Amino acid sequence: MSMHKNEERLESLQKSYEQYKSQNLNLNMARGKPCPEQMDLSNGMMDVLTSKDSLKSTDGTDLRNYGGLDGLPEAKELFSKILDVDTDEIVIGGNSSLSMMHDSIAQAMMHGVAGGEMPWAKQDKVKFLCPSPGYDRHFAICELFNIEMIIVDMKEDGPDMDQVEKLVRVDESVKGIWCVPKYSNPTGIVYSDEVVERLASMETKAADFRIFWDNAYAIHHLTDEPKEIKNLLEECKKQGSPNRVLMFSSTSKVTFPGSGVAMLAASQENLDTYRKNISFQTIGPDKLNQKRHVEFFKNVDGLKAHMKKHAEIIEPKFRAVIEILDQQLGGKDIASWDRPDGGYFISLDTPEGCAKEVVGMASELGVTLTGAGATFPYNNDPKDQNIRIAPTFPSEAELRKAIEVLCVCIELASLKKTVRAS
Amino acid sequence: MSMHKNEERLESLQKSYEQYKSQNLNLNMARGKPCPEQMDLSNGMMDVLTSKDSLKSTDGTDLRNYGGLDGLPEAKELFSKILDVDTDEIVIGGNSSLSMMHDSIAQAMMHGVAGGEMPWAKQDKVKFLCPSPGYDRHFAICELFNIEMIIVDMKEDGPDMDQVEKLVRVDESVKGIWCVPKYSNPTGIVYSDEVVERLASMETKAADFRIFWDNAYAIHHLTDEPKEIKNLLEECKKQGSPNRVLMFSSTSKVTFPGSGVAMLAASQENLDTYRKNISFQTIGPDKLNQKRHVEFFKNVDGLKAHMKKHAEIIEPKFRAVIEILDQQLGGKDIASWDRPDGGYFISLDTPEGCAKEVVGMASELGVTLTGAGATFPYNNDPKDQNIRIAPTFPSEAELRKAIEVLCVCIELASLKKTVRAS
Repeated sequence: MSMHKNEERLESLQKSYEQYKSQNLNLNMARGKPCPEQMDLSNGMMDVLTSKDSLKSTDGTDLRNYGGLDGLPEAKELFSKILDVDTDEIVIGGNSSLSMMHDSIAQAMMHGVAGGEMPWAKQDKVKFLCPSPGYDRHFAICELFNIEMIIVDMKEDGPDMDQVEKLVRVDESVKGIWCVPKYSNPTGIVYSDEVVERLASMETKAADFRIFWDNAYAIHHLTDEPKEIKNLLEECKKQGSPNRVLMFSSTSKVTFPGSGVAMLAASQENLDTYRKNISFQTIGPDKLNQKRHVEFFKNVDGLKAHMKKHAEIIEPKFRAVIEILDQQLGGKDIASWDRPDGGYFISLDTPEGCAKEVVGMASELGVTLTGAGATFPYNNDPKDQNIRIAPTFPSEAELRKAIEVLCVCIELASLKKTVRAS
Repeated sequence: MSMHKNEERLESLQKSYEQYKSQNLNLNMARGKPCPEQMDLSNGMMDVLTSKDSLKSTDGTDLRNYGGLDGLPEAKELFSKILDVDTDEIVIGGNSSLSMMHDSIAQAMMHGVAGGEMPWAKQDKVKFLCPSPGYDRHFAICELFNIEMIIVDMKEDGPDMDQVEKLVRVDESVKGIWCVPKYSNPTGIVYSDEVVERLASMETKAADFRIFWDNAYAIHHLTDEPKEIKNLLEECKKQGSPNRVLMFSSTSKVTFPGSGVAMLAASQENLDTYRKNISFQTIGPDKLNQKRHVEFFKNVDGLKAHMKKHAEIIEPKFRAVIEILDQQLGGKDIASWDRPDGGYFISLDTPEGCAKEVVGMASELGVTLTGAGATFPYNNDPKDQNIRIAPTFPSEAELRKAIEVLCVCIELASLKKTVRAS
């Protein structure tokens, strides 16, 4: 663009900016929250267990009393299908897979894991690989435990495995890696078979290395052609390293966040360690809520049908975001964004050094985005360019407005940068 | 008794023993589990929330979505009454107060607590005072974290405070004490005002000393004259040491174990620490289950009325145990037992060196008791004399049979001991 045209465009954008400002908007796209209509889909779950039901498990356990530390048989049966494992390879927990991940790391720090010589906390240093952009709450757990985070680049089919292989081969203090293998948070990418195979077969210096496989969006498809990933636990078993992976998921974004059920799938040895640790820690999960889930879905087909209804509600929102981004920013060479087939986010890259400014500008206009940097360890995006868009919670009308605002902010920030540079 | 009479009695007891053996009994008094009739009392809780209800909190929060890390306002309102604290002095958690206790210790080990210079795990040694007999799962948490346990004698009105005061005054590594202040597990004793006051005012060498106040049986009365204890948090505030105490309770034995709600009451600083720690660890508690509890009880009167129904079911069982013990062992000078006014246990002392033998003999007859030693740190009752009786779960008929068996075993073991000694 010529200097003159730049100035004209800047003026026009600034006018839009002021107009939005006068509207006193209050739109929030910060967190991956289901919208009320999505939660309505599960309201029926409130009615499936009543005082007239037997409130017993298939194995005869009284669901109202103590017991059942690692989950109901019927819950294992149903939810093992989400992670594609056998019913004896899964533990069904409480209401939060984040807790299971936190606890797994806390336990490793305090008590160590199978294959390790000592608790992680007793070692000089513990490091984790963090494919980035990634999930802020994973990184927060590392910060909590003083685990040093090493950024690994995210590619179209998963983390840059050349980087990963190199880092784990030489450094014994590298004890783990965070992965969201399907419809990744926030980039929406799906790990390729090759990445899964390399994760299973790579040589690690640390004998107690663990892959934290947060398959949060395993069944959260946006299209009619569900993406499938290779089963990492199977691959690890084939490679003789069955203890390498801990797989997590939950129904937080299937039924009700806060009242869902979480799960951990792993090798027998890892599950035994986990069961032993939690036997000190809890009287067991809420069995009635597990039963409620099982009764509500009946079987995996019920679960899949339910997820289609979620997609019907949120897919148009994802489409609206992409549509507006295409219309307003397409071809301008100032931003790039993903077109995810599932999950909860759209990841957008601004020109380098603009993300913070854009998020700040949007905030001034009443549009709250996930903080710039949140998708990187230590809240620090080295290129200051990644923005995470969470389209599910707002109504489509609010969302459209918010994305329009975002587009104006991005173009404005990028144009200002160009003008400054010229 | 004369030698001859001893032998006669021994023969008669051995005959009884063989008779019981032939009955192939299968009676379990090992754990403090509510019986099915007790859980029936809460069945109505399954019906109070349906898909037709608003599923919103009093503050407008959608109970079905993320949020509410430290509990619903209406749950704080209701359950603060159990621990006799203000609504801003309590956090309502998940389904297990054991988890809140474990997590509080784990957090102290990893991250330290207010007033401390460093995390407990970084210190050479961490010790806890364990008034004994006490609760095995408290002791198990200490073992898990390599916390050295020091036995303190239990008296009629709480731990021997002379011992406690001496130990905490001189040793900086003594970081905590376990207390079940009301209807103690297993002795059923209730802490006196003097004990509470001394706990609040005693001088501790460790600035980060904590009293783990597990008020599990706060409202679990067996009589119409509920025992009350002095409020330790208030006492600590008066003494200028508000951070000294963490108070726990739950509805595990009020509604459904596994599907109850747990709570932690403490100073603002302690609660802030706890809230910060759990913000890394969980997406928050099950708000729907908290609401279910509130709707079911309505208010503290509803809660009290509910607890009377529990007492009506289990008080006759406690009475039956005491009655049989009185009849079969009374005046024989071979055992002593408590007559608790609440809680879940009856604690019985055999002659020294007999508890393990008695529990083993009972087991041979098909009567499972809590393992001898379980009520002491490291599973080691130095005098081998304490047996914990959990009368709530079996039917009254089963219970009577089990206690008859127990009495025979006690008399037999003690007589054998006398004969051996003579």
